[in-house]
Amino acid sequence: MNEAQIITMLWAVGIVAEAMTGALAAGRRQMDLFGVVMVGCATAIGGGTVRDMLIGNYPLVWVANVEYLVAIAAAALLTVAIAPVMRYLSRLFLAIDALGLAVFSVIGAQKTLALGLDPLVAIVMGVVTGVFGGIIRDIFCQEIPLVFRKELYAIISLLTAGLYVVLDHFHVDTGLSLVVCLSLGFLFRMLAIRRHWTMPTFNYQEPAH
Amino acid sequence: MNEAQIITMLWAVGIVAEAMTGALAAGRRQMDLFGVVMVGCATAIGGGTVRDMLIGNYPLVWVANVEYLVAIAAAALLTVAIAPVMRYLSRLFLAIDALGLAVFSVIGAQKTLALGLDPLVAIVMGVVTGVFGGIIRDIFCQEIPLVFRKELYAIISLLTAGLYVVLDHFHVDTGLSLVVCLSLGFLFRMLAIRRHWTMPTFNYQEPAH
Amino acid sequence: MNEAQIITMLWAVGIVAEAMTGALAAGRRQMDLFGVVMVGCATAIGGGTVRDMLIGNYPLVWVANVEYLVAIAAAALLTVAIAPVMRYLSRLFLAIDALGLAVFSVIGAQKTLALGLDPLVAIVMGVVTGVFGGIIRDIFCQEIPLVFRKELYAIISLLTAGLYVVLDHFHVDTGLSLVVCLSLGFLFRMLAIRRHWTMPTFNYQEPAH
Repeated sequence: MNEAQIITMLWAVGIVAEAMTGALAAGRRQMDLFGVVMVGCATAIGGGTVRDMLIGNYPLVWVANVEYLVAIAAAALLTVAIAPVMRYLSRLFLAIDALGLAVFSVIGAQKTLALGLDPLVAIVMGVVTGVFGGIIRDIFCQEIPLVFRKELYAIISLLTAGLYVVLDHFHVDTGLSLVVCLSLGFLFRMLAIRRHWTMPTFNYQEPAH
Repeated sequence: MNEAQIITMLWAVGIVAEAMTGALAAGRRQMDLFGVVMVGCATAIGGGTVRDMLIGNYPLVWVANVEYLVAIAAAALLTVAIAPVMRYLSRLFLAIDALGLAVFSVIGAQKTLALGLDPLVAIVMGVVTGVFGGIIRDIFCQEIPLVFRKELYAIISLLTAGLYVVLDHFHVDTGLSLVVCLSLGFLFRMLAIRRHWTMPTFNYQEPAH
Repeated sequence: MNEAQIITMLWAVGIVAEAMTGALAAGRRQMDLFGVVMVGCATAIGGGTVRDMLIGNYPLVWVANVEYLVAIAAAALLTVAIAPVMRYLSRLFLAIDALGLAVFSVIGAQKTLALGLDPLVAIVMGVVTGVFGGIIRDIFCQEIPLVFRKELYAIISLLTAGLYVVLDHFHVDTGLSLVVCLSLGFLFRMLAIRRHWTMPTFNYQEPAH
């Protein structure tokens, strides 16, 4: 396999894993099977969809390749079937989610650079690709987006996309750059989970009038 | 009237009815008149707007024909005026909403096919057109989207759009196809309401850690 | 400075002020620094972004000029640093926000007219530009959008954009028109705050079944 095939494969693993976490979030809210499919799809492809709509990059990936959408919907429904087993796979899912975060961030940056846009825009779009699926999932489930509140997640997306853009700027070999960015992004996320690293929060309460 | 005129007329009835249900939802949350207009407009044209933004189909219908938007806003405000009567019209509204669901689903699929996109994409866009107005309404009203939780609604949109796409594939006369799809979609929805048919739900609760 | 420069400067003041109100909203929900930046950015540029996505006007302003986004993110983070002082600046912020509302509404209408779209569409897009940043902020913070519930806000956006479009229609000098619209929009909003003017609300409760 060449590097484009490897990253496509990692991306496919990532969206399936995201679809399954979306389905579980729907299950926590006792949605019906349509809700499971919708939240699963939104979680898996929401980030890339928002990115492409922001930069006007049509057709969307899943409109041009609707088989991805079918696979995501199937993964969401499969999650319902295997839910009793999912409890024992939560560590595995955290790892796949960490890999997915790194892959999405790199792909978002890469696609934006390929369109000739500014490197800073590429970093922003890497973060959008990495985190907006989860933001839409949480809005559908009527929760304040987790990514605004807890843990190192978005910042890892930012650093991964940023590193990719910097390495690209210095013409580092793409294959090498992918290995470095994905490894570091993945490791950083796994460390952040294990060590319970968090971002500082901002607590602002208005004085009584 | 030819079939294009009939479907446009049914669509107009549908968006007016959706605007009124949106206005009632705003009233349940005690919004002000601007909220009523905004939620009414989002409910009526949200589905078609999301569809056209996803497939990059510009200009949007209500941007090209802003008189539709004015009519929707007027319908939302009218709802406030006639609210005391609305209580007695809830059965009528359920019927119009059922017709609207079928019309929106068929139109969404039809417009997508007309752009030369994949039949599966057309079915997806039929569902988006049918259900996203209600999803945006519920997000504006801070509720978990009803369509993710209750009753046969989205699945009827899916079957109606699917049937239209299949009949189109086999070159069935469009007028006949419209009559069949709209009748079956409408009847199925009315039966689902009367018989309280529901989708299976997915209840996933995490074990205590 | 010519009039284009003045309006750009007022716009810059407006988006910085909106970024700061977004950051405070995030602080009320005890979000982390990433949440602060995201809610700040969404509040500041959400309105213009939604407008341009609705009319298919690419590239988006902040994609073409990513330095604006960096400035907005910096303003959001600065807000965290100077939060203890912010309590004493709430009157100043209300005034800047009132000015921002007028500026955003006029710019939204102006840009839409410049694209050759219908004057009514221009008014709608003025309102979208004026109020959608706050709508997205409230959805991210899991609140029913304030603009749907309280105070004269959206209606001032509507009147300001409407006046601009009318004056443009009668070929009034743009500089004069800007002065008139911005002054009246600002004054109307300040009066509405001081006098506690509100829109009528719509309270619709279903009868028990």
